[in-house]
Amino acid sequence: MFHRVALIGIGLIGSSLARAMREQGLTHSLVCADVNPAHCTTALSLGLVDEATGDVAQAVRGADLVVVCVPVSACESVARTMAPALEAGCIVMDTGSVKGAVVEAMTPYLPASVSFVPAHPIAGTENSGPEAGFAGLFTGRWCILTPAPRTDPEAVSRVRTLWERMGAKVEIMTPSHHDRVLALTSHLPHLIAYTIVDTAATLEGDLQSEVIRYSAGGFRDFTRIAASDPTMWRDIFLSNREAVLDIAQRLTEDLTELQKAIRRGDGDKLFEVFTRARTLRRGVIAAGQS
Amino acid sequence: MFHRVALIGIGLIGSSLARAMREQGLTHSLVCADVNPAHCTTALSLGLVDEATGDVAQAVRGADLVVVCVPVSACESVARTMAPALEAGCIVMDTGSVKGAVVEAMTPYLPASVSFVPAHPIAGTENSGPEAGFAGLFTGRWCILTPAPRTDPEAVSRVRTLWERMGAKVEIMTPSHHDRVLALTSHLPHLIAYTIVDTAATLEGDLQSEVIRYSAGGFRDFTRIAASDPTMWRDIFLSNREAVLDIAQRLTEDLTELQKAIRRGDGDKLFEVFTRARTLRRGVIAAGQS
Repeated sequence: MFHRVALIGIGLIGSSLARAMREQGLTHSLVCADVNPAHCTTALSLGLVDEATGDVAQAVRGADLVVVCVPVSACESVARTMAPALEAGCIVMDTGSVKGAVVEAMTPYLPASVSFVPAHPIAGTENSGPEAGFAGLFTGRWCILTPAPRTDPEAVSRVRTLWERMGAKVEIMTPSHHDRVLALTSHLPHLIAYTIVDTAATLEGDLQSEVIRYSAGGFRDFTRIAASDPTMWRDIFLSNREAVLDIAQRLTEDLTELQKAIRRGDGDKLFEVFTRARTLRRGVIAAGQS
Repeated sequence: MFHRVALIGIGLIGSSLARAMREQGLTHSLVCADVNPAHCTTALSLGLVDEATGDVAQAVRGADLVVVCVPVSACESVARTMAPALEAGCIVMDTGSVKGAVVEAMTPYLPASVSFVPAHPIAGTENSGPEAGFAGLFTGRWCILTPAPRTDPEAVSRVRTLWERMGAKVEIMTPSHHDRVLALTSHLPHLIAYTIVDTAATLEGDLQSEVIRYSAGGFRDFTRIAASDPTMWRDIFLSNREAVLDIAQRLTEDLTELQKAIRRGDGDKLFEVFTRARTLRRGVIAAGQS
């Protein structure tokens, strides 16, 4: 499908892309750039890429597809640095978990001769780095594309095919709609998981060690979510601020209501809410997302 | 180990106990009582028990071990109903997720001739009913016993051995300490999961269907937690009210702080909290609870 693919950032997502593209034979050659020299060494020694460099401009030279897989806050500087070296006609894609802010940060730097197709593969684990990736990460998961209306349809179609070849299901929406949906399905759960685990981390010593020892189902799941990369998540919250705060506010109101029901001993209210939540779970299973 | 074990309630926990006891050869015969006739029929047809009845008193007659595996709110009436039929010298155990309220509800009805050893196996899934159980449910999980100081040490020791034979690790603590630890490790995570899933369930129609469709890692985990049995969880919150409200209040304060940090764009604060949460995750992994 491509002659030369440049991956900017070879962490969990970048290295999974490298593995999946190799496995599916989607590119002739693969090159990566990463600010962390250790990541470059690992990527080469694992055979993930043909070339690895610390120089973004060098990596994108001659590439017909450039995929930016860096924390959201680094997207602007990557776009600025690579812009002069981009080949005319190449496709640029990012993989950030926030779309509005990334599109706004990158678009001004990209020459009119390239096609920018922002992408967000809704896939990941709590692990990071080039060793953490695997070829099947995108299998059966959604990848949301948020191209501008004027983007070359041919480029969008090639990106769609690329993701589908890696096993993903593709959907197209606007950046702001994406950010609202993801604020609830992903960003808020992470914020809550971080909060609850930090609440435990700041408990008195004895109680804290017992909380760790007797980690039951719920808390254990939360600690796994809260083990995600702190830099990546700091960036997500700061760059999707409004949607996250709006949905966090709704949650706070709903939680206050449940607290009140517990205080009053209102079992009917609790039962009603829990039953409604269980019904929504069935929808998630029916949608094949469980 | 036992001649005749009576399981009061043959849901997820009761049916897992039946399977584990059979597999380990821990009792000569097994009988269950359940208010739901369909559960009795299923338990018999799956070969989980030798007898099944709707009559609690009949089930406990002749049993040297009685295990009460019903929602916390039903423990008092079970204790009252079965008390006259209990054999002298038998061991009574419950498996409720809350200990203080259960001990208080059951103890007054139990004759002095029986030993009451309250137990809480920290194990479960989001599924319920006799089909949902499996013999390995307790393997590697903690089971916390909260016997009164005057309880016959021989009975406590037999209960400890029983759980260990089913693969569990056993710890002894006071009911109130148990309830405080579990409020954070289990009850609060469930309350939050129910809240966040209900927040989604009450969204405008379009957004809700997309939230289901694009359920990412975090939200998907929450919906699984929130699929747990509504009756069981209503009872837990009502009977561990004080500890749950106390820890929910701490969470609300911590969440408010993070919301403020996001609003102000305070990335350092977010990074600090997220890093601390990640460290606690390592503790959970080191404790073998992941």
